[in-house]
Amino acid sequence: MKNKWIIFSMVLGCIAPLNAQTWIWYPGDYEIWLGNQMNNRRTERGAFFPPFWKTDSHYVVIEFSKQLDLAQDEEISLAVEGMYNIKLDGKLQFGMPDKFVVPAGKHKLNIKVWNQQTPPALYVAGKTVKSDSSWKVTYEDKEWIDESGKASDTSTTVYMDAGSWNFNTPAARPSLFRLAREPRQVVAYESVKNGTLYDFGKETFGYLDLAGITGKGRIHIYYGESKEEALDIDACETLDRLDVSGDGRITDLALSDTTLLEENTYILKSSKAFRYVYVVCDPDVGVDKVAMQYEYMPEKYRGTFECSDPQLNEIWKVGAYTMHLTTREFFIDGIKRDRWVWSGDAIQSYLMNYYLFFDTETVKRTIWLLRGKDPVTAHVNTIMDYTFFWFLSVYDYYMYTADRRFVAQIYPSMCSLMQYVLGRTDDDGMVEGMAGDWVFVDWADGYLDKKGQLSFEQVLFCKSLETMALCAGLLNKEQDQLFYAKLASDLRAKLEPAFWNDMKQAFVHNRIGGKQSDEVTRYSNMFAVFYDYLSSEKKQQIKKSVLMNDTILKITTPYMRFYELEALCALGEQKMVMEEMKNYWGGMLDEGATSFWEKYNPSEKGVEHLAMYGRPYGKSLCHAWGASPIYLLGKYYLGVKPVKPGYEEFSITPVLGGLKWMKGTVPVPGGSIEVYMDSRQVKVKADRGCGYVYLSSQKIPECVNGRVEKITAGKYRIWVETKEEVLIRYCSF
Amino acid sequence: MKNKWIIFSMVLGCIAPLNAQTWIWYPGDYEIWLGNQMNNRRTERGAFFPPFWKTDSHYVVIEFSKQLDLAQDEEISLAVEGMYNIKLDGKLQFGMPDKFVVPAGKHKLNIKVWNQQTPPALYVAGKTVKSDSSWKVTYEDKEWIDESGKASDTSTTVYMDAGSWNFNTPAARPSLFRLAREPRQVVAYESVKNGTLYDFGKETFGYLDLAGITGKGRIHIYYGESKEEALDIDACETLDRLDVSGDGRITDLALSDTTLLEENTYILKSSKAFRYVYVVCDPDVGVDKVAMQYEYMPEKYRGTFECSDPQLNEIWKVGAYTMHLTTREFFIDGIKRDRWVWSGDAIQSYLMNYYLFFDTETVKRTIWLLRGKDPVTAHVNTIMDYTFFWFLSVYDYYMYTADRRFVAQIYPSMCSLMQYVLGRTDDDGMVEGMAGDWVFVDWADGYLDKKGQLSFEQVLFCKSLETMALCAGLLNKEQDQLFYAKLASDLRAKLEPAFWNDMKQAFVHNRIGGKQSDEVTRYSNMFAVFYDYLSSEKKQQIKKSVLMNDTILKITTPYMRFYELEALCALGEQKMVMEEMKNYWGGMLDEGATSFWEKYNPSEKGVEHLAMYGRPYGKSLCHAWGASPIYLLGKYYLGVKPVKPGYEEFSITPVLGGLKWMKGTVPVPGGSIEVYMDSRQVKVKADRGCGYVYLSSQKIPECVNGRVEKITAGKYRIWVETKEEVLIRYCSF
Repeated sequence: MKNKWIIFSMVLGCIAPLNAQTWIWYPGDYEIWLGNQMNNRRTERGAFFPPFWKTDSHYVVIEFSKQLDLAQDEEISLAVEGMYNIKLDGKLQFGMPDKFVVPAGKHKLNIKVWNQQTPPALYVAGKTVKSDSSWKVTYEDKEWIDESGKASDTSTTVYMDAGSWNFNTPAARPSLFRLAREPRQVVAYESVKNGTLYDFGKETFGYLDLAGITGKGRIHIYYGESKEEALDIDACETLDRLDVSGDGRITDLALSDTTLLEENTYILKSSKAFRYVYVVCDPDVGVDKVAMQYEYMPEKYRGTFECSDPQLNEIWKVGAYTMHLTTREFFIDGIKRDRWVWSGDAIQSYLMNYYLFFDTETVKRTIWLLRGKDPVTAHVNTIMDYTFFWFLSVYDYYMYTADRRFVAQIYPSMCSLMQYVLGRTDDDGMVEGMAGDWVFVDWADGYLDKKGQLSFEQVLFCKSLETMALCAGLLNKEQDQLFYAKLASDLRAKLEPAFWNDMKQAFVHNRIGGKQSDEVTRYSNMFAVFYDYLSSEKKQQIKKSVLMNDTILKITTPYMRFYELEALCALGEQKMVMEEMKNYWGGMLDEGATSFWEKYNPSEKGVEHLAMYGRPYGKSLCHAWGASPIYLLGKYYLGVKPVKPGYEEFSITPVLGGLKWMKGTVPVPGGSIEVYMDSRQVKVKADRGCGYVYLSSQKIPECVNGRVEKITAGKYRIWVETKEEVLIRYCSF
Repeated sequence: MKNKWIIFSMVLGCIAPLNAQTWIWYPGDYEIWLGNQMNNRRTERGAFFPPFWKTDSHYVVIEFSKQLDLAQDEEISLAVEGMYNIKLDGKLQFGMPDKFVVPAGKHKLNIKVWNQQTPPALYVAGKTVKSDSSWKVTYEDKEWIDESGKASDTSTTVYMDAGSWNFNTPAARPSLFRLAREPRQVVAYESVKNGTLYDFGKETFGYLDLAGITGKGRIHIYYGESKEEALDIDACETLDRLDVSGDGRITDLALSDTTLLEENTYILKSSKAFRYVYVVCDPDVGVDKVAMQYEYMPEKYRGTFECSDPQLNEIWKVGAYTMHLTTREFFIDGIKRDRWVWSGDAIQSYLMNYYLFFDTETVKRTIWLLRGKDPVTAHVNTIMDYTFFWFLSVYDYYMYTADRRFVAQIYPSMCSLMQYVLGRTDDDGMVEGMAGDWVFVDWADGYLDKKGQLSFEQVLFCKSLETMALCAGLLNKEQDQLFYAKLASDLRAKLEPAFWNDMKQAFVHNRIGGKQSDEVTRYSNMFAVFYDYLSSEKKQQIKKSVLMNDTILKITTPYMRFYELEALCALGEQKMVMEEMKNYWGGMLDEGATSFWEKYNPSEKGVEHLAMYGRPYGKSLCHAWGASPIYLLGKYYLGVKPVKPGYEEFSITPVLGGLKWMKGTVPVPGGSIEVYMDSRQVKVKADRGCGYVYLSSQKIPECVNGRVEKITAGKYRIWVETKEEVLIRYCSF
């Protein structure tokens, strides 16, 4: 058995393959640049609205290099974004040739590219010489020449493996990347006052089309995720204004040079999120037809879920659609308002994505963008907790993908961010909100104290330090590993003494001046549960005293519900979580949701559901963190998760949680795992990897076409090999 | 007297005026961006040649803000480089208006600009509202909104005074800046082999014109600072190749899209340095006429010098021309080869500039560019000594200009660079070359050990720490001042014990493992002299044992001759220095120099003078550091220098040094100081500031139209008031 697993592990080494012959760049640079394009598309009632944190940019000069050993002379052709030179064995070549012959033998090829506007990028194609992520890149080659003409020893230059995506032809210049588009039609419209309200049937995203524009005057366009918002011309969050000049010219008044005319069809150049559009024209202006170009990231729905409960199926579908709408160039928070990348939102998108698209490139891009460049001048998105979620997301990614190359590329950025955090700890080695820090935790319907040492932040900080130690270990950086492991264990040892309160049988919310507060909130308690930071006994106490205690401040965002329900699942409460999912997400569906919301308080009524941030339509009705059932159903009902990085080894712990039957697919690197379960049987098939099915404690396998192992009393493990369907008939008691 | 000086000091407060109604940007950003354009114009035989250190770039999103208090409503008009929004009192305005009315009363105006390609820049013009350097800028406003719609407390945001130059109209967009051009003609030409050699009469810089191009084929253009270089088609440093296609199209083969056609005149788009141009056409191609567009920074020659010695006058003129050629968008090293900004070169350009153009804007721009952005990943230009020269240049600049605003803007960058240095000191608190550091010192014709603790580097390090303390004090940063002053005094106390050798009566060159080497070089000794780091006795010892000792390794670069001669002047050896200047710079003139060189070894012959870096024409024949007589004559012969910042108080110590007479002008902020001297009299006039003339010890004033003070035996001080010519008749003994 052991040997087989080793071979298997080698096969899996191909999970993150070198992309042969592709455009390459300095890792993170394209991602940051593309992220700026995306983050800066936010508008608020016609005003440009960039983020309030430092916007980084790419290195403008990059040297790409490769050691070659050619059997024969080889002509290479180059495509380059930027001005460049070519050095062969240290000798500069004339001009900027797009073809170049490298002679047979061992050679060092260096290509240096300058580009202020878009990231320096390179595509090299020859018979054997191909640009890919095995090329080295640096922003500083330090190759000075002394008076005698001798080059400096550049052995200290820091080289990185090049970054890449899927731009695999010379014409596919990275800076030209655009998402896909498809036309979509209005499903209903009606006259309202002096305008027309168009309904596209469900939440959507893209560019409005206006055809057959006549006359002279102004066209006002008001967008709404809800009918109320579209019709509220003074308060809707997004809008456009066009001037029709009578001579066929149309000007977009909000953001100039954002218009395009195509055969009497006018396509807006700025994208918006909406279901409804309210178009109001000046008396002399007419619009014949309104339609749209739906814009999306092409994704394969590799994860699936179906079960005996139609409502849950609908929840899964609307969750998947919510995820798809918010999976764009990056995983963004919501499509209407911010359209920004936020770390706390993103880590949940990653986790859901592992059970839906398994789009690893978008995970990496988002992690790069969030991190930005040194120097670190603020927390990620300026939010302390979001810094910690960023760390956690890196190791999550590694566990799901086994992509060690990425960890190696991002590790220096992890260190400098952690250095920033460590430079801001207090005398207890804990983090407290300092001037300029946003201590977020959650949007809560009640007062959350943000002062002093928050138990929630310390738990995340501790997990982040553990992540640093894990990544350092993975990269064989022993000194770093020891350093971070020590910090992590020191902090972990302080958590219970500092925050555990025996009276409350819970972690208290915070501590100020060494004194515990009276407040208990769910946040640190639920994280401590699924991080396994407490004894089983204490975890069970928390379940009762906090998680299932209605006097504790309720969570009203799907964001923290994600973790709350995960904690309950980790405690085996799938049945209760199922009811919660049906109530909470089902509640949104009952309110007419076609995608899941930023926040949902079941006790609110009507238009109260639309308000947030002191604005009547401030709330996002399509928010990535609303889609968490995708994750919960995949990980805690189908029960599939990686045990070794990249699903080299996996475990399946299927739990019906009250359903009659369920079936689903969980994507893994280069394949998938299929699970079916009803009250009598479990069927499992994996086309990559090896693993095992755990039956929960009240189930006994009766008939299995595979190896069964009894672990402890009433606990069984059934082995799963690649491509063999395992059928387990069981009885419950 | 005291009161008068205070008033006077207030007048001088206008030296660095707020530029009313001008384009503004984040300080340093435009400078770095423009510097990239310039540094990246270097070519080597047709190949693009960017620097080997990290190329930084501007912040791509900047918020500009201003607190307003208007007596009445005011319409402002905006010109912006980038996409932008406008916030009035926190409320975003629709679109990107180019006009906007600010209501009467107190208001906060915030304008946020995004620009990836060129620095975000803003021009605002109203009746009273004007963009200038009193506007605040930040790259990170941290203005997040909580759920209730409340904005975060942004009191911790770091704001800077905006940067600006002289772009004072809406149309003068900073990104469009170009140097001035003027047509220049060939002075001679001759046929050589199958081409034509054109001579422009002297070293020059610009763009070649080719008129009347006919036929089909290739035109080869070889540039030379010398005739030999232009004619050596295989080894000349710069060249161009053009393809004439017969249909009127001409392609620049070296760097595409760098060509321009104007009515049958073809102007090359890439500039070169040359005196000679050798043009070789394919048999079927003809060129009717060759000319050029001379490119230059418009500068007023505010400093002048004339004397009884025609050779010295010629040296001054050629030095001034050398300075003018190398004073471009920035102070660059030389015009042919690097065309880069180098810190060690630049600090000398600054000092010469204070006695020639007094172009303070180019000093500031160059300091910003050299510093770049955080994080610091290497020494300035990768060279340890160049890091230290950078620090020194900031305080020099302050002394000559009294521009405290600039010191405040750059101070955070000084701190982070010093932090980098302090992170690389050894157990003695001294700097040693570490992996990746270039320890330069000088291009020496002999072995210079670069290992261990170099006395030269410690002297510069010590002076840099003193500079930090001075700047911190200037900005009332008391803690910083104490911190750096302590480090400086600690290091200074170590210099003599570590490096002084009584046997050698000098600082030794270096110390390895705590052991002094046997070597004595001029570098640390001469710096210790004019930094006044040693007793008078030891300084006199050094003069004999090092400076005037022919067995000590000779200096053959004008770069270190600058300091060597300065040290001798500081020791009162103007007569000897005069002879040296005439021999050394006169020697270059005798060799036919029309601008001064990167290096000159009088013992070399013929084409030996052209070689460097292992290449026959590697040497730059127009190198800024070659112009040092400009500085020496101004500071040590005319003898003018600031005593208080910005010449609020100045001293004049005129020394003929063997000349029969001399007269000259030294520019000061907003005016100039004129000095005339012959064997019988000194005449001085200053139209700004107050100061005094010192007569050297062997001169006694006989008749003076001003106040004379005897300081010590044989030493006199004569007071100079604004705009009053002071005439001093003296006798020598």
